[in-house]
Order: sequence, then C-alpha cells, then structure tokens
Amino acid sequence: LLHSDICGEKMNSNVIGPSTLQSELVDDRLYRQIASQIATQIDNGILKRGTKAPSIRRLSSERGISISTALAAYRALENDGYLEARPQSGYYVRERHNVNSTGILPPEIEQSTPSLEPTTVRNAELVVRVLQASNYASNSGNADLYQLGAAICCPSYLPTDALTKCLINAAKRYPDIGNSYDFAPGTPVLRTAIARRALDYGLTLHPDDIVLTVGATEALQLCLRAVTNPGDAVAIGSPTYYNILQLIESLGLRAVEVATHPNDGVVLESLEQALESEKISACIFMPSFGNPLGARMSDENKKRLVAMLDKWEVPLIEDDVWGNTNFEGARPKPAKCYDQTGNVLLVSGFSKTLAPGYRVGWVAAGRYRKRVEYLKIVGSEGNPTLPSLAIAEFLNHGGYDYHLRRIRRYFAEQTQMALEGIAKHFPEGTKTNRPKGGHFLWVELPQHIDTIELFEDAIKEGILIAPGPIFSARQKFKNYMRVNCGYNSPQRMDFALEKLGGMMKKKRG
Amino acid sequence: LLHSDICGEKMNSNVIGPSTLQSELVDDRLYRQIASQIATQIDNGILKRGTKAPSIRRLSSERGISISTALAAYRALENDGYLEARPQSGYYVRERHNVNSTGILPPEIEQSTPSLEPTTVRNAELVVRVLQASNYASNSGNADLYQLGAAICCPSYLPTDALTKCLINAAKRYPDIGNSYDFAPGTPVLRTAIARRALDYGLTLHPDDIVLTVGATEALQLCLRAVTNPGDAVAIGSPTYYNILQLIESLGLRAVEVATHPNDGVVLESLEQALESEKISACIFMPSFGNPLGARMSDENKKRLVAMLDKWEVPLIEDDVWGNTNFEGARPKPAKCYDQTGNVLLVSGFSKTLAPGYRVGWVAAGRYRKRVEYLKIVGSEGNPTLPSLAIAEFLNHGGYDYHLRRIRRYFAEQTQMALEGIAKHFPEGTKTNRPKGGHFLWVELPQHIDTIELFEDAIKEGILIAPGPIFSARQKFKNYMRVNCGYNSPQRMDFALEKLGGMMKKKRG
Repeated sequence: LLHSDICGEKMNSNVIGPSTLQSELVDDRLYRQIASQIATQIDNGILKRGTKAPSIRRLSSERGISISTALAAYRALENDGYLEARPQSGYYVRERHNVNSTGILPPEIEQSTPSLEPTTVRNAELVVRVLQASNYASNSGNADLYQLGAAICCPSYLPTDALTKCLINAAKRYPDIGNSYDFAPGTPVLRTAIARRALDYGLTLHPDDIVLTVGATEALQLCLRAVTNPGDAVAIGSPTYYNILQLIESLGLRAVEVATHPNDGVVLESLEQALESEKISACIFMPSFGNPLGARMSDENKKRLVAMLDKWEVPLIEDDVWGNTNFEGARPKPAKCYDQTGNVLLVSGFSKTLAPGYRVGWVAAGRYRKRVEYLKIVGSEGNPTLPSLAIAEFLNHGGYDYHLRRIRRYFAEQTQMALEGIAKHFPEGTKTNRPKGGHFLWVELPQHIDTIELFEDAIKEGILIAPGPIFSARQKFKNYMRVNCGYNSPQRMDFALEKLGGMMKKKRG
Repeated sequence: LLHSDICGEKMNSNVIGPSTLQSELVDDRLYRQIASQIATQIDNGILKRGTKAPSIRRLSSERGISISTALAAYRALENDGYLEARPQSGYYVRERHNVNSTGILPPEIEQSTPSLEPTTVRNAELVVRVLQASNYASNSGNADLYQLGAAICCPSYLPTDALTKCLINAAKRYPDIGNSYDFAPGTPVLRTAIARRALDYGLTLHPDDIVLTVGATEALQLCLRAVTNPGDAVAIGSPTYYNILQLIESLGLRAVEVATHPNDGVVLESLEQALESEKISACIFMPSFGNPLGARMSDENKKRLVAMLDKWEVPLIEDDVWGNTNFEGARPKPAKCYDQTGNVLLVSGFSKTLAPGYRVGWVAAGRYRKRVEYLKIVGSEGNPTLPSLAIAEFLNHGGYDYHLRRIRRYFAEQTQMALEGIAKHFPEGTKTNRPKGGHFLWVELPQHIDTIELFEDAIKEGILIAPGPIFSARQKFKNYMRVNCGYNSPQRMDFALEKLGGMMKKKRG
C-alpha cells in the first residue's frame, strides 16, 4: 500500500476555487491510482532506483492527464519516499530508507498544577487566531506544508473508497429516504449498529438511548446546554482540547481547570478538591486518550470518577472520540460502563478513525436524553440522512475492525517515531508524555521557549504546530505544544521536527 | 410523469428497521421504475381501464422483485389514481379523474390580534407531544397515512435522482476532499453558487458573507445566539413556525407576538407599538411566504421594516426558506436587499424545494457574521462535505430553475385544490387565508372546534394535521389549523379534507 499518498498536499476542501470544481482540480482518484502504479513499478524494479523518473510533462502526455494531476502523483510518491525532487533536474527514483529507530525517548512530563479557581475562558480569541492562521496556510496552496498542528489523520489511511461505495449504494437504493428528513434521534439502522458495537467494549446501550449529532462537537454542545445555565462552572482537564474551551466561552460558562497526569489523565484528588471548594455544574473529561494528552485513565479510576460525580450529583460529559485509538491491548471501556444512575453523557463519533468529512457523532445522554434530543431537534432538526446510512452500512459490512487494527498500528508507529525524533532534534530540557492512544504528543519545552512565537516562526517555514496556550482557559502552557503524529510520512515528520528543533535552539535561554 | 408516487407511503427513514437496510426494505428505485412502467402501460391502453391488474404475487414473481417492492409499486399507482384497491379482490385499473375545480373559496381570515406583552414560550411541551404523535403515526407502518400535518413536500416532486448523480460524482472525483473536514464557513464552491443566485433576485452577496449551516434551523439557532442573551425578548409573528418558538424556549428567551395580516405578513404598526413598549433584542420574521401563513410582505413594507429596525437598533433575523416558492410573478426580494447597515441576518436553505435530507442551509449575517461563524465552528465545526459539493454542482449544472418552475406550479395548483376542498367540505364559518407561496393553508374553524382534539381524533383515522396552538407562544389559535397541501395527490387530499370536515360537523356548536 502506498504510504500517506496525498499528505503534505493541499487537501482541505477550501482549495476548490469558485468555478473550478470540474476543470482545474487535481483528480484525487486518478493521481492516487497512477502513484500507486508507479510505486508498484519501483517495488518490482521496473523503474530502477537512482534513475531519473519521466518528466511531469511526459507523464502527463503519456497518461493523458493534466499537469496538476501528474504533479500530485509525483508529490505523493515523493512524500512516500519513492521519489526525490532534485532542483533544476526533476524527480529521481530513490532508495527507500526507514527512519532508523533509536529507541531513545525524551524524559517524561510531570502532572499539571492548575489553579482550581473558576475562570472565564480567556484564550478564545487566541484559538481563533491560531486556527485562522493555520487554515489560511493550509489553503494558500503551499503543497509542502507540514501538518503537525491540527489533530487530523492522513486521508490515505482512511477507508474512504469503501465508505464512498456505502454512500453510493445508499443513495441509489433509497433515493426518497435519502432525500427525506431524518429527524432526531436519527435513523435507527445507525443507532442499532452503534449499540451493537458498544457491546463489544462492555457497554449495554439500547438504540433508543442514542441521539445522532453533527460530529461529536454538536453532541458536546447539546450536552453542555442540557446540564448547565450561563454563569455555571464546568470542570475540565488541564490541558484540554481547545474546542471544549470555546464551547464553555460561547455558552457564557466558567471553567475550573483540574490537574491531569500526562499518562493517567484526570487527577481525582484534584477534582475532589475542586468539587469541595466550588459549585460545579458539569464535568467534561476525555478519559480514554484525551486530546492533547492521549492519556488513559485506568478502569479503577473511571469507576471512582463515576462514583464521585454521582455522589456530588454532577453530570459527567464523557468525550470518547479517541476511544478506538488504543495502541495496544483491548479498547478501553468508557467510564459510562460504570454508570448506574444515568449521570454520564457519553459522546463519541466517527471523525477520528473513519469519516471526518461525514460529520457523524452521537451521544448516549443517560437521564438527560430527552432534553438532549429536544435541543437537537430544535437546534438542527436532524442529521443529513445519507451520511448516516453510509456509516451504518460500513459498520455492518465494511470491515471496520480490520481497518481499526491497521490504523491503530499506524498511529502507534508514527507516535513512536515522533517521540524519537523529538529526543533527537529538540533542545535539552524537552519533555513529553507517553501516550497510549490518539496520534499526538504533549511536549514541554525549555522555559524560555514561547510556543506562540514558535507557531508564528514555524508557519513561515511551512510548518504548523499547536501552541500550548490554546489548551488552557488561562493561556497557560506557554512553553508547551501539541505535535500531531498522524498526518505526515516518517521522513517528512522527521524533517519538520529537525527544523523546529533548529528554530528552538536559536532562541536564547 | 408519475404523480406523487410514494406519497401516502411510509417514507420517513425511521421505517428502516435495525438490520433490514439490505434485505427487507422496499427498493425505492425499483418500485418507482416499475410503477412508472405500469403507468405508461395504462396510459397507452395496454392495461385496460376497469380490468383487474396482475396480483401482487404475480407481479413479484414475473419481475423477480420482493413482495414488499411489488406492493409499494401498486400503492404508488393507487395513490396516483391509476389503480384502486378493492377489498378481498385486489387491484383494478381505474378511470383517472381530476378533482373538478369549483372556483369556490372559503371566506378570508382577518388580521391576528395578539397581546404585545412578552411571554415565556408556553407551548413547547405541546409541540413536542404533537410532533411525537405525528412521527409515531408516520413510522407505524400505516401506508395510507394522509400527511396534512408537517409542511413537507412530496418526494417525487424533488429532483432526487439528479441530485444523487451530483453526489456520486463528487464522492468519486474528490474522495479525499469529500472525506475531509469542511470547517465553517464551508466550501467556497457552494458559497459562490449561492451568491450568484442571490444576484438573480437583486441581492449582492460576497461568498465570504455566507456561512453554511445544517439546514436553516441551525442558522436560526446561531443567529439568535449571536444577537441575544437569555431573558431577552424576541419579536415574532403571530402565528409563527413552531420551531422558532422552540428555539426561543430552548435559549431561555421570551417571545413578543406581533400582529400579522394573513396575506401581507407582519403588521408594521403592531411591531412599532411593541418596540415602543418593550426592550426587544431581535426580530425573527419570514417576510416571504412565512410558515404557517404563506403571506408575502410587499417590497415597500420590507423596506419600511428594515428602516424601522435599523432606527431601533434591533437586528432582523430574516427566515427566507420559502422565498423560492412564489406561485406567480418574480421571486420576491428578501428584506435583506434593503439592508444598508448589516443589521439583517438572512437565513435560507435548500430543504423546501430541493434536498430536505441533505440539511444544507446558510446565513448571510451582515455585521454579525464573525460571531455567527464562530458559534458555528464551536457548535458543530462544519457541515458534512459531500452534501455541500453535491448541491453546489446541482445549482451550477442541475437545472434548478427549471425544477423551481415545475414545483411552484405544483404547489400553486395543490394549494388551490385544498382551498376549494375546504370550501366544499368544512363546516360553515370556516375561513382561510390566500397564500401567495409555500404549500400550506392557515384555516380558521368555527369557535367551538378545538384543533388539539381534532388532531387526536384525526390521527386515529390516519390523518395528520397541524393544530393552531403549536404556532403560538401562548397556545392561542385553539380553533385554527395549518393544512399542508404539498404532499398528497389531489384525490387523497380531497378525501382527507372531506373526512376532516365530517369529523368537525359532528362536534356540537
């Protein structure tokens, strides 16, 4: 299989210019096909290592494809280590080399120590600024952008073709259903498939417990609105995913940042202390491979967490979108498994491992189900119908388990390579966590490094990172960053980490 | 063309049982194809009028289709007036007869006279109860349900096949783009197509003015959240679409109900009075064929409305989803055309005339654009990618204008027939409005008729209606109802109106 074929290419849909949908765009399917054929020729020795590859122009005319499609195929091959570009000379078939594993990892980060005082979210504008700059860079047509920022997965590792087949099948067989409203809670066929899969990790759900949403994001929004009123305090991990901070801000809530251990997640003693000192209306945690830590709470701690919040009568919104990304062993149980009172609102979806473009999430909101369903109907009526039908079919017949095994291995390997790359290239004093899932690292840099500055320097060099302060309501973590490991080829990731290390080493301590 | 081929059939996607997606479901495409072939045979005299049609079992074995698909084909033909079912005997080819136009219409309704005092929304539970009962009936497998309730259009009048082609085309050509996030404001190709079409009705928008949303519903939600705080008062028409009332309730706002004229929409004098007596934070109006009135504000009144709200510094959320459904003349200009200060937030979408199942709406939020875009990103990140690409392609190449001409004629004819049916069948004292667009009527019944009771009686007979009190924050309009004219064949609509009339006449005056 061709590795990460379009990663590093401009891939955001925003690159479709106004009237170019038909004519000027790279043909995704075609260039991938051609790149894959050429890769096979190289693997089979038909194209010899070290020789010059046909010119872009020749490839274009021989295959009857556009220049831009030919270029996309070569860039994919370059990205994958099959070709290398030599300035003023063209593309050459190169020796493949893996990044040699050194086994040397950076020292480990310690537990965070946030203030437990409630605070308004003060980084909302910063988050918008960082996201906008990142999107602008992604859409500027810089094909060599290194995506270490957003926690998105390389599209070539997603089973998009199989999913497309499911979509086309549903659209053809059920045109009227597909073009009719699918009012919340949403099509039973998908809710049933979700409930069946939940059984596999020990969670008994009835399809009627589930409400389908526009990604997990809408589910989090609905849950927060269902259990809080403006002005209320919501407990979150420190650091936490910036979208959760934005949600808290946008609903006029306050945040209580609770300590986390970089590998074990929320520190329960810190949470208990927060509960004792402040009226808290809800918690949002990601107990299984939360973003940005990739930490995993133990089953024992999940059980304690649920019992504690039950005692305090504080609902737990459990964001489980990364639950399927365990590097090894069995997929962790959600905390919801220990919920006996309906106090846990479990949120998940398919954007992280299957279908970011389909926007299908779901929530099993326990005793808040009715209110969540009401808010969903009132706020967006229902989900688009065909994406739900397509995902249901994929879950039932598409080989999701096989796919998950493959993508977990990929995430685990990439994360390991990033850890080693950081150990090799970043300045002394750098520490990281040791995630057990997800595809990102939480990196502590020497005190004098300001990652907002680093973000701005790096973007000029075509490297996107996620600076630490976007993960904190108080804009803490000035010298931290999150590194996405799930998007770039090993070569490109190593190159980008080396470059970032160089930038850091130039800063005065 | 086969008329309204599946209307009256169970069509809500909820009818897909848990594991039946592949096996037991009716094949939509196939039964439509077969029904269409049989209709042609009848039109051409190959199947003679008055003779018995082949049995379901025979049709099934001759065509190699399932019993349920054969049954669906026959029901479609029955619905369309080609066949009639005779108990214990089977299906017969029948004479087609049009409902003869009488030209006699009911007397006209007068202007509404709401109290201008702000109120909490008191009908939220009632709306949920009515919608749930309606959905339950729709999904109960009663294939003969008469859908005079929800304002939905008969699926066979939607260009679903052409749209499906656009979707498949986009999914095949741009698999990676189609399966990547499309962060708000959403794919430029669709925003550009929307801006181009706006020019046709006199509105200059830049693609960057537009944010794509999950149907117009999400757009309304975002707009309200952008311009109000909990506890604020929001002016609405009386009556108004129940979802707007639910939105107001769900956001902790209060409603100020303003008088409407049944044909001309919001009464500006009433609005001015409300503005003078109460601090109002926003207005939500539907100046072009608002639901449930189908009324049309004149250009002059739209201009005055915009100027008035500008003076009072009260933002106008303009819900224009029905704007394309004018029965005659040119499509009306939105009030937004008269907006010089960015005070109008224009909301529209494609659910009413093109793609209810795709959930694509949009908003041009004027000076509130940034906040609306922020709330969209935070609340659901972005829309699903492929539905947006498909609709863009349909707008650019699918013949939307031709389709609109056809569906407008259909809506106009159906509405006319419903008016005549009501004049013929409903008790004396019944009045209606004279809509100029949409596909529904607002009906005033004699004082002693309680439409909540009527709703409950009618549902037992397989007829769905929308009782008046769901359109009022104070549960007014006890003896009013909205009649959907856009779903049933003329024969079925006439039958249902006759039956409803009979029920009413049994009630004591």
